[in-house]
Amino acid sequence: MNETPDAAVTEEGAKGVKIKWLINKKDGAPTFLMRHFTVEACGFTPFHSHDWEHEVYVLEGYGKVRYEDREEKIAPGDAILIPPKTKHQFQASLEKPLKFLCMVPK
Amino acid sequence: MNETPDAAVTEEGAKGVKIKWLINKKDGAPTFLMRHFTVEACGFTPFHSHDWEHEVYVLEGYGKVRYEDREEKIAPGDAILIPPKTKHQFQASLEKPLKFLCMVPK
Repeated sequence: MNETPDAAVTEEGAKGVKIKWLINKKDGAPTFLMRHFTVEACGFTPFHSHDWEHEVYVLEGYGKVRYEDREEKIAPGDAILIPPKTKHQFQASLEKPLKFLCMVPK
Repeated sequence: MNETPDAAVTEEGAKGVKIKWLINKKDGAPTFLMRHFTVEACGFTPFHSHDWEHEVYVLEGYGKVRYEDREEKIAPGDAILIPPKTKHQFQASLEKPLKFLCMVPK
């Protein structure tokens, strides 16, 4: 795979987030792509929405997903579908990094 | 998510394989689906091919992927793209179960 190094996510509203592409377009992925995220303790991804879905699998650490109307705790082994056009944010716990896979359509 | 229990894979050529659906069509996944596989020590998936790709992420255990012309060792943290129409088989090591996610297009 054309794996990339960990890179800081500089999008506004992100704090302490790194992304690594595990399966990308250069690998010839026909339908969807695989990324690995690390959110440092107390960090968070942008609270945003977009036209495509996320499929997330939590690998390590704890935290929560914030939606427009609620929050849900997440833990290792959890699988989460964020539907298209749904505002969402991943937040790490205060104690340790949150690591998860996040797949997106090509 | 409409997670299913672990179910034995009864396809011919499989030995000691269980599948659990983590994100499926009932969840409204628009593009691709997420499954969790456990292959017991010395077990293997069928040596087969199909018209769709696999995107695999190794969670636990060791083993190898067998292709028509070669084998590749796999370990936790590895991401593997199996292109469409590519013959493949996942084999667990002799010592312990191999656990991986396997995403497929809808």
